[in-house]
Amino acid sequence: MLVAGRPMRSLWPAPARDALHVIDQRRLPHELVAARLTGVAEAARAIREMWVRGAPLIGATAAYGLALQCRVDAGDAALQRAAAELGATRPTAVNLQWALGRMLARLLPLAPLARAEAAWVEADAIADADVAANAAIGRHGLAWLRTLRPRDGRRLNLLTHCNAGWLATVDWGTALAPVYAAQAAGLEVHVWVDETRPRNQGASLSAWELAQQRVPHTLVADNAGGHLMQRGRVDAVIVGCDRVAANGDVCNKIGTYLKALAARANGVPFMVAMPLSTLDLGLPDGAAVPIEERSAREVTHVHGRGPDGAVVEVQIAPDGCAAANPAFDVTPAALVDGLITERGIVAADGAALRRLGQSA
Amino acid sequence: MLVAGRPMRSLWPAPARDALHVIDQRRLPHELVAARLTGVAEAARAIREMWVRGAPLIGATAAYGLALQCRVDAGDAALQRAAAELGATRPTAVNLQWALGRMLARLLPLAPLARAEAAWVEADAIADADVAANAAIGRHGLAWLRTLRPRDGRRLNLLTHCNAGWLATVDWGTALAPVYAAQAAGLEVHVWVDETRPRNQGASLSAWELAQQRVPHTLVADNAGGHLMQRGRVDAVIVGCDRVAANGDVCNKIGTYLKALAARANGVPFMVAMPLSTLDLGLPDGAAVPIEERSAREVTHVHGRGPDGAVVEVQIAPDGCAAANPAFDVTPAALVDGLITERGIVAADGAALRRLGQSA
Repeated sequence: MLVAGRPMRSLWPAPARDALHVIDQRRLPHELVAARLTGVAEAARAIREMWVRGAPLIGATAAYGLALQCRVDAGDAALQRAAAELGATRPTAVNLQWALGRMLARLLPLAPLARAEAAWVEADAIADADVAANAAIGRHGLAWLRTLRPRDGRRLNLLTHCNAGWLATVDWGTALAPVYAAQAAGLEVHVWVDETRPRNQGASLSAWELAQQRVPHTLVADNAGGHLMQRGRVDAVIVGCDRVAANGDVCNKIGTYLKALAARANGVPFMVAMPLSTLDLGLPDGAAVPIEERSAREVTHVHGRGPDGAVVEVQIAPDGCAAANPAFDVTPAALVDGLITERGIVAADGAALRRLGQSA
Repeated sequence: MLVAGRPMRSLWPAPARDALHVIDQRRLPHELVAARLTGVAEAARAIREMWVRGAPLIGATAAYGLALQCRVDAGDAALQRAAAELGATRPTAVNLQWALGRMLARLLPLAPLARAEAAWVEADAIADADVAANAAIGRHGLAWLRTLRPRDGRRLNLLTHCNAGWLATVDWGTALAPVYAAQAAGLEVHVWVDETRPRNQGASLSAWELAQQRVPHTLVADNAGGHLMQRGRVDAVIVGCDRVAANGDVCNKIGTYLKALAARANGVPFMVAMPLSTLDLGLPDGAAVPIEERSAREVTHVHGRGPDGAVVEVQIAPDGCAAANPAFDVTPAALVDGLITERGIVAADGAALRRLGQSA
């Protein structure tokens, strides 16, 4: 996507194949800063501390993390240790395990001396496949958007939660791919951007990337979506996902479930953009998804740019206030009107997902 | 209620009857600072800028505002101008209009020279009636809480949104009155406190006052409530209200509706604490409630205590980001399991509310 008018991916390997560059997303929207990761520990840290986040992007970052490992020691034990270290960084998104599994399956059968070269090729393939899948999600999503009629008679008003844009992927995004495809096709769209507390990925990432692409958008508190739907100001909700269970239950950023309930209550379509890498057919339903519990400090404190221009952390709760911070929730399949995949739109039900999984 | 162990109301007239003291709630939870209001313009400013907020408290503040006006000019025209100025400060809560109407009905029939004295007496009566109503809401709410069985087998887990505690009233609170009554009665309760973006009244006010009263509580992002209910960690939701329509539709802080949807979907009782001063029988249903649209800056910026201890405003959104900020939403009566009033618990339906209104 474009940043200040120039094309950019959210990660890019160094030409010498000795490092991975990522955007340090903690510093957006105030600063665009790239970080250079040179080893598996740095890649793991970047995922754990959310320099990179978004299910597809952490999968690709982990894949390159194994490629970095191969430069140092490509032996079976070292690779498996590295995969374990990377896999332990975040529990909920399944793409992380998926990408690591794909890398190991490619590398372990090779002679150790051949692994470094193959690892970069495979990581590149994972990244490029993500871009291609998202572009396809954009095309299928656009076809669906064309079937909607703007309630305001003017433009399609979409609501999204968290960031499932290009910053959450290698390029294009999942939930926002149809938005960018619509813009390219001349379809008028406007996006309601949920702030997405506690880490504010909507306010800091989705709003930023939509502004870079010049897509009209309006930031709202997470609390506002139900009201907007009641008043007919939302034509559809479109979100990404971190893991989809075999029965179609969708695990995504905390608060997604509330928007799905409001969408159903108000006759607003609720769609989930899901690359196949996010489908976990081994998981019967959403009740079994491991829900990451993050630091209480993310709830009691907020980062932002202060009056002197420096980014600081401010405390919004009383001293010593206890806080809980579940990072994801599960939207039951029954509330999901469709899953937009790179193979087309499918129903969020077990039979459809089994067929999709078999054809993968 | 207690502050640092000493009893305190959220407003108190100066003994000389020449000023009203209020807590400047914008500075909580970091500082407890009282403001001295000496005229109607100051009272209007305190309401408009949310030094005081909460439907019952802004009603009481406006009543004292008219009493302050009477010290300067108690003529009909001056009083009506003052009532108009106070009434224009915030559009959604009906208690403001209710209190002003009650004051004018009491004062206008009197000779102007008798009005100043009567105004203070009437404002005191409004404040004292609020305290008594809330104490009664606490008793009725406690009786209802005693009918619930803790899902965790240990203590009742209640979820509340925004602040409908003593800080939103003159004393006791509405939604939190049953919590304080439960605590006094030795019933074990724990409160999930919604942060309540964009102004964070949960994080800054509810968490603060619950801590002062030593009621166990945990702050959560507004996004978390649905997940907590799905996982059986909420026994009931209890909120306040800014206006209840004749059909039982409840207008309250933005985001309330989302919690009501989640409560219904998960079999969790959703209760609204409603002093009769909040009932607007002149309004057929919630669709007609005027929803206050507040400043975009409340969404794009957050106040908190910075690293050096000073309270600062930080920007969380990109420069120039558009934001919408509807301050209230409407929960349809069908999602409300009961209204806890000072006369007991009533159903959120037109017939019950008409009977209640007739008996008032």
